[in-house]
Amino acid sequence: MTDLSATIGVTDRPSGTGAARHLVSERPALERISDFLARQTPATPCLVLDLATVRDRYAGLRSALPDARIHYAVKANPEPQVVEELAALGASFDVASPGEIDLCLARGASPESISYGNTIKKRSDIARAHDRGVRLFVTDSEPDLDNIAAAAPGARVFCRIAVDNKGSRTPFGRKFGCPPETAVRLLHRARQLGLEPYGVSFHIGSQQLDPGAWEHGIAAAHEVFEGLAGYGITMRMVNLGGGLPAAYTQPVPPLREYATRIEEALDRYFGSDRPELLIEPGRHLVGDAGVLRGEVVLATPETGSERRWVYLDIGRYNGLAETEGEAITYRLRTSRDGDPTGPVVLAGPTCDGDDVLYESTGYELPMTLRAGDWVDLLSAGAYTASYSSVGFNGFAPLPTYCLDGDERTERS
Amino acid sequence: MTDLSATIGVTDRPSGTGAARHLVSERPALERISDFLARQTPATPCLVLDLATVRDRYAGLRSALPDARIHYAVKANPEPQVVEELAALGASFDVASPGEIDLCLARGASPESISYGNTIKKRSDIARAHDRGVRLFVTDSEPDLDNIAAAAPGARVFCRIAVDNKGSRTPFGRKFGCPPETAVRLLHRARQLGLEPYGVSFHIGSQQLDPGAWEHGIAAAHEVFEGLAGYGITMRMVNLGGGLPAAYTQPVPPLREYATRIEEALDRYFGSDRPELLIEPGRHLVGDAGVLRGEVVLATPETGSERRWVYLDIGRYNGLAETEGEAITYRLRTSRDGDPTGPVVLAGPTCDGDDVLYESTGYELPMTLRAGDWVDLLSAGAYTASYSSVGFNGFAPLPTYCLDGDERTERS
Repeated sequence: MTDLSATIGVTDRPSGTGAARHLVSERPALERISDFLARQTPATPCLVLDLATVRDRYAGLRSALPDARIHYAVKANPEPQVVEELAALGASFDVASPGEIDLCLARGASPESISYGNTIKKRSDIARAHDRGVRLFVTDSEPDLDNIAAAAPGARVFCRIAVDNKGSRTPFGRKFGCPPETAVRLLHRARQLGLEPYGVSFHIGSQQLDPGAWEHGIAAAHEVFEGLAGYGITMRMVNLGGGLPAAYTQPVPPLREYATRIEEALDRYFGSDRPELLIEPGRHLVGDAGVLRGEVVLATPETGSERRWVYLDIGRYNGLAETEGEAITYRLRTSRDGDPTGPVVLAGPTCDGDDVLYESTGYELPMTLRAGDWVDLLSAGAYTASYSSVGFNGFAPLPTYCLDGDERTERS
Repeated sequence: MTDLSATIGVTDRPSGTGAARHLVSERPALERISDFLARQTPATPCLVLDLATVRDRYAGLRSALPDARIHYAVKANPEPQVVEELAALGASFDVASPGEIDLCLARGASPESISYGNTIKKRSDIARAHDRGVRLFVTDSEPDLDNIAAAAPGARVFCRIAVDNKGSRTPFGRKFGCPPETAVRLLHRARQLGLEPYGVSFHIGSQQLDPGAWEHGIAAAHEVFEGLAGYGITMRMVNLGGGLPAAYTQPVPPLREYATRIEEALDRYFGSDRPELLIEPGRHLVGDAGVLRGEVVLATPETGSERRWVYLDIGRYNGLAETEGEAITYRLRTSRDGDPTGPVVLAGPTCDGDDVLYESTGYELPMTLRAGDWVDLLSAGAYTASYSSVGFNGFAPLPTYCLDGDERTERS
């Protein structure tokens, strides 16, 4: 079921519709990475990130949603060179902790460009952020709001509301966000606490494949704006969250379609009274920029009705956390492509029964694949290296190499 | 449903049956850890390991199964001081990678005491192990066996057979092991390749709550012994694998019951022709030795039919990987114990929808619990720190403090 000849970002390639014109370096990106891997033959497993692709995705999003301030969700890939690259381009940042704030500041971001986007934070962490100059905080509960008021007096706050995550490959469940009526109450209270009630955020789930998914969030945000207007409070900002996809095995609609549907919903609910817009892409900016190279450790023979098991040196605990539940299905490329294929189960290298990558998805790989062959996971730039364990089973964390387009390489 | 007054190892406490006499320091262990936490107030989250408990569990197992060579499964907790402690006691080691081999050798283990227990290994890793003096390897497939023959000529091999994991809280699925008839074929082939066919291993799943679970593995091992006898090959060793439990919320039968059932099965199938025995405890030796201290970051108020959400500074990505699927349910203790309790959902601190610890298990915690209060997860010494991510969301890996019983403490 996997298109083994696919190139990075295949689903966003310029098509007859004239969409996605911002994506200028599809084939070259994969070629650059392949050249690097062929020339340097780094030890596997490793992640290779093409910074030109990150720049390209950033420019594309800027052009598709020109009114939105782009806050890179650092958690997707906190590689310092990625943060530095985006800071140099003028990006803003969505962070989850003081650790990520310090990273951004060290790599050229200004405190004003940082949004503390984690609804779960200690008062001491809020104070540390405030000390560093951060003045924008999310909230979704009264105790957190009280902490912000105490530790970051006068700061801007936006409230995260809970919305449907249908269509997302990795939905959020009920961990984050509150109902719109609670948001009205919290933002009203924010004003009473001396904070600046600034806006509303929502998140329609990561790797969202339905470009229309933002509409009900925008509608709910408008409801909160109206509710606060009743208290004489003018809200100013809608934070569209993340959810823009990278190119895994599922077909992904072009970015232009997402932008059009978002613009339409804003028109419908806000008309000419347009709010300021924020967006928090993570996966979309860095996913397609990365190739994860692994090696086949072992490939068992096919026995009767049993599929072959192909064991890689990369697994759930050294980079492929998002294969949990087979939620994210990477496109694959191998050193045996072109040979006849057959069904396989793919597994990682640890002594852990849960370290099985794909058993039900139905991958097919070359039947000639054997120990020592390489397997590339494409569009693996997001949510891989940073999930890596410190050393489960004695396997080292996943190293990252960054290519800057001028062939300079650096291992982080 | 959780017994909040439970002490470490509660289910193994000496009972009226006279069993488990080896467990001598139940209450003192928890008291030592509590004293350390009260005195040093280390930043949370952190893991505190009581080495006296590790020594105690090792002595207990040695006395319960005096004929078995104990290979500590290093993956359960590769903390160097734990390895050093066990090496000093004369333990052997079950390792998963060259990284773990180097760790053991650096901490006093001899190469002869090491068993390379991962069926998934690169030829280069086998060679590295052989270079270091390791002479005992598991296998379960032909390509792996060929690699061992090439990279570790003359080594001893044992074959892992697949057995039912019923009764295990974390079963292995079909990733490891082969049918007994395949094991006969592989071990016969091992002899032809110049290797020493030594024995059979099986693993009945981690945290095995049925003391009778080993019987069918022992029966299958005997079947392999018989099959090889037909080729004139005398097998010598049965490796009972892991599976001995730590004390989570479920009642755990006393160790003596496990030992009795294992001995009975050995008598039944091997009679007076007893094989050498190996056992690979991980969780059982270190689980009950650890307390993981976390802090409440946020506790939302109860709203109507909604349970409270209690967010901790410890979650799936900085130590609690085994809460996936709510497989392992730790016993909890809080700074508000004694206050009236109510149902809660427990979640970790990251911006990740999957970082929810317990939603369906039905934990109840004091309703007074609020930000800044501490929560201890008991018997958290196994499969926590080593699963920790390198820094997902900017949160640091889980630090470990070891107590050696003489009050000396050291942070790893």
